[in-house]
Amino acid sequence: MSTDLVPQLDLRALRDRIDTVLAESLRRPPGGIPSPGDPAGELTQALTDFVLAPGKRIRPLLCVLGWHAAGGGDSEQTVWRTAASLEMFHAFALIHDDIIDGSSTRRGRLSVHRAFAARHPTRPHADAFGVHAAILLGDLALICSDALVNTAGLSTRQRDVVLPLLDTMRGEVLQGQHMDLVTTGRPTDDVDRAMSIARLKTAKYTIERPLHLGAALAGADVDVLSACSAYALPLGEAFQLRDDLLGVFGDPALTGKPVLDDLRSGKATVLMALATRQATPAQRRTLDALVGREDLGEDDAVRVRHILQCTGARQTVEHMITQRYRQALRALDDGALASSVATALRLIAAQAVMRGA
Amino acid sequence: MSTDLVPQLDLRALRDRIDTVLAESLRRPPGGIPSPGDPAGELTQALTDFVLAPGKRIRPLLCVLGWHAAGGGDSEQTVWRTAASLEMFHAFALIHDDIIDGSSTRRGRLSVHRAFAARHPTRPHADAFGVHAAILLGDLALICSDALVNTAGLSTRQRDVVLPLLDTMRGEVLQGQHMDLVTTGRPTDDVDRAMSIARLKTAKYTIERPLHLGAALAGADVDVLSACSAYALPLGEAFQLRDDLLGVFGDPALTGKPVLDDLRSGKATVLMALATRQATPAQRRTLDALVGREDLGEDDAVRVRHILQCTGARQTVEHMITQRYRQALRALDDGALASSVATALRLIAAQAVMRGA
Repeated sequence: MSTDLVPQLDLRALRDRIDTVLAESLRRPPGGIPSPGDPAGELTQALTDFVLAPGKRIRPLLCVLGWHAAGGGDSEQTVWRTAASLEMFHAFALIHDDIIDGSSTRRGRLSVHRAFAARHPTRPHADAFGVHAAILLGDLALICSDALVNTAGLSTRQRDVVLPLLDTMRGEVLQGQHMDLVTTGRPTDDVDRAMSIARLKTAKYTIERPLHLGAALAGADVDVLSACSAYALPLGEAFQLRDDLLGVFGDPALTGKPVLDDLRSGKATVLMALATRQATPAQRRTLDALVGREDLGEDDAVRVRHILQCTGARQTVEHMITQRYRQALRALDDGALASSVATALRLIAAQAVMRGA
Repeated sequence: MSTDLVPQLDLRALRDRIDTVLAESLRRPPGGIPSPGDPAGELTQALTDFVLAPGKRIRPLLCVLGWHAAGGGDSEQTVWRTAASLEMFHAFALIHDDIIDGSSTRRGRLSVHRAFAARHPTRPHADAFGVHAAILLGDLALICSDALVNTAGLSTRQRDVVLPLLDTMRGEVLQGQHMDLVTTGRPTDDVDRAMSIARLKTAKYTIERPLHLGAALAGADVDVLSACSAYALPLGEAFQLRDDLLGVFGDPALTGKPVLDDLRSGKATVLMALATRQATPAQRRTLDALVGREDLGEDDAVRVRHILQCTGARQTVEHMITQRYRQALRALDDGALASSVATALRLIAAQAVMRGA
């Protein structure tokens, strides 16, 4: 397969293949869990709807590209199942994250906890029921992710390198989520902390580790892993910085989530930390008074956006994105990765950084 | 090791060994997660406090006994880490379950979500923060459970039998939790459904699968697995039926949880289903009016206990426990399991069924 790379690196075809593996695994969930069609199969059906909804599939794509980057091999089934397990793991992370952030929508639909509440309107405490069902659905996604890895047919050599990487990736994203939880809601000028969260929750989790996992499956050496990191870390930071801008300035019709959510929750972003640091005392008082307020309205948001603009924070973040994007592309220029892989990674970088959703 | 079984089957020594493995794994959590002593190590410290609190360790104990039952072998380190992973998985299940059940205490201490809220009293929405931190702590426990399995050194033969069993065990308990969530709060006379939940959440999860996992590690044949099931399923049902009685009639000083919780949440137990089925119309109206009420008080509980008593539901459940306990013991009499293992299993059965906590 790896001798004829071009057709495999059609990103749309790769995505379709990943979705096929995901769909097939959801039709046959782990023992004890009813199939989606079963009357008792509400959880599996909800997970199927969530996982197979249109999405970027960036983590499994990067896993497959990492495998190609390290020369591929004969473990094709293994790489697809491992790649799919990352999307299933991400479903777990998103479902629990939406509960924690109090997000009511995701990808233009109701978030999982809101959807469960809406499906059981006559239950007493329907909102709490929705949260509790969503906790279980996130748990199911994590268990299904494990089941995909457990049935991926990893060789002993692959297990020895891939499983520690997986454990580390999971630890990193969880630590990032915890830092996020503890920091959110309190306006802070701690840019370093906001950047640490971005690195754990996005740069490593979304870009670097998926590439490493795929590369490790193909027996990558240290040089390939380093080349992956040199591309992944700056790109991942740029990806999160773009996300932070979209969270305040984005078009809800494109992002699929209300544009006030980040401001209402007081999310600890680099953007907000820069603005807080550079604000005049009066601007600082406005930020302290508005950011993190649950009842923040559109007029308040306009005032906050104005401060993000005139402190220069928005422009600084745009500049940081450009710098990091260029750095990621330069890392591909030294030829450490096969040119077909580098081409796909350039496309992914552009999509990650220059997007409206 | 398996040639000299007696010292290994000292249950207290087995428990100590399990705790040593758990403590060691928590000192070195998966990459990205700070150690307990680290200033950012709040999650790991909380998980350490939770997991190492005194407990029965029944699942890891049964895993080790299942291994001995199948003749043990040279995979000693593997069986300890797999056994410990079950206790870590159980921490995950308990932490999320306590959120879902709204339980404020566990083992005589604050439940995890209440403890997080209490540790951050000055945060806005401290209660919601506590729940969100507890969601992440449960997630961390599941990830740590995986890391224990991933580093257990399973041989290829062991993986092929043990990992599907693990996936199934996880699916079963999650399905039981979901059935529990959907059923709880609505008084029902559906004894079969309550028994199905007991089977998934307790009989299989707590007794049968841990024995199977240990036995599978030692390469058990079908006869040994069947002998384990013949003991495990009736015992596990008896264990849950005892739990249901303790949840209504138990001494909070011994159980470590308020005796009104099960009644207030309207937990779907066999006990309550039997009472509902056998109640007079007037008793049924009383049950419908009181069970599942959050503000149910001690006087109300006295009325419900009175109905559980005079409908004969309490006595029927005691009878069901005795029947199942005897059935479990009889399953040990046919000599399929080594006598030292059978002796330990008899002791565990007695502790599971005749307990006050």
